[in-house]
Amino acid sequence: MTPFDTLLQQIAFIHEIDKLKYIIRKTRLFNSDRHENDAEHSWHLAMMAMVLAEHANEPVDVLKVLKMLLVHDLVEIDAGDTFLFDTVLNHTNTEAERKAAERLFGLLPEQQAKELITVWEEFEAGETPEARFAKSIDRLEPILQNVSNQGGTWMEFNVPYNKVLEKTLIIKQGSTALFDFAKTLIDTSVEKGILKKEASEA
Amino acid sequence: MTPFDTLLQQIAFIHEIDKLKYIIRKTRLFNSDRHENDAEHSWHLAMMAMVLAEHANEPVDVLKVLKMLLVHDLVEIDAGDTFLFDTVLNHTNTEAERKAAERLFGLLPEQQAKELITVWEEFEAGETPEARFAKSIDRLEPILQNVSNQGGTWMEFNVPYNKVLEKTLIIKQGSTALFDFAKTLIDTSVEKGILKKEASEA
Repeated sequence: MTPFDTLLQQIAFIHEIDKLKYIIRKTRLFNSDRHENDAEHSWHLAMMAMVLAEHANEPVDVLKVLKMLLVHDLVEIDAGDTFLFDTVLNHTNTEAERKAAERLFGLLPEQQAKELITVWEEFEAGETPEARFAKSIDRLEPILQNVSNQGGTWMEFNVPYNKVLEKTLIIKQGSTALFDFAKTLIDTSVEKGILKKEASEA
Repeated sequence: MTPFDTLLQQIAFIHEIDKLKYIIRKTRLFNSDRHENDAEHSWHLAMMAMVLAEHANEPVDVLKVLKMLLVHDLVEIDAGDTFLFDTVLNHTNTEAERKAAERLFGLLPEQQAKELITVWEEFEAGETPEARFAKSIDRLEPILQNVSNQGGTWMEFNVPYNKVLEKTLIIKQGSTALFDFAKTLIDTSVEKGILKKEASEA
């Protein structure tokens, strides 16, 4: 393969991933009614990782964390976004996401495709310091948004404190400092009335 | 300052930069009528840099390039977006952008603020291999979008071939491979009739 062929494959990938801008999340922007899309979300997480890296439980390779966060939701171009508190669908490691990773990263030259699939798999597995920290960041952002949005998806989808706390625990694996902060935020949200102690009757 | 105070400052910054999602660019998404916002744009550039780094003229520190691209448009939160082909305003190094950088990065703990202002200044100056490559990427994306959008902003704002070529030359400083590719794209665009050889009369 010539360097030009390599470049053409890379450009095809860059073109295709534009579709991440159409994947709409349940969460809304800080102080806004507009829903966030996955590209904006991925940018915000990368910024958070850059700025918050010192709070990771273990030293992390920031470049690897950024790569993980920039690519982590690409599979949703084919597989769609699954809401964190969805009671039917389980987000993690679905067959649809695996196929999406193969198709999307497969647009790239072979070696680069393998490299990015490995980065994505490492994030999904959540077993390295980088993956644990990246997952902390991914979980922290919607908490900040909901607090900033009078309860956001917690109120909209009637998600009670215990469910939120349960999903928040994963932050601890990447950063106890960020977990403590997030815990304070959700505790305070109950006091403020923007997070219900119990789910209300349907 | 306690680690908790540090964290509060960082969270204030993370909250504030959400506003980048409201800064609307002149360019539109690939294959779409919707305008791109600066957060989506920054994410896409970071992805491009990750994938295209091998084409840089000189070896680059990819982490530094990513940092540059993730933060490069933050100043537009206060200073607004200036269109590349604007005939009145000049984008580079305005006093408004300098003030914006001080206010926005100044939300962070002092050391971190200095660090990110330095990254932003290095990008703006365009004198290191990382800055030259980052600027190549920033210039390449709208070309890909316009080609994908029947001429996009070139047709919409009546920008002729020579003006486009002139702005494209900067890509060469970061990557001759990407410049050659971009040059082929704009030459082909003239043949396709989606870029005018001469500006039409008003």
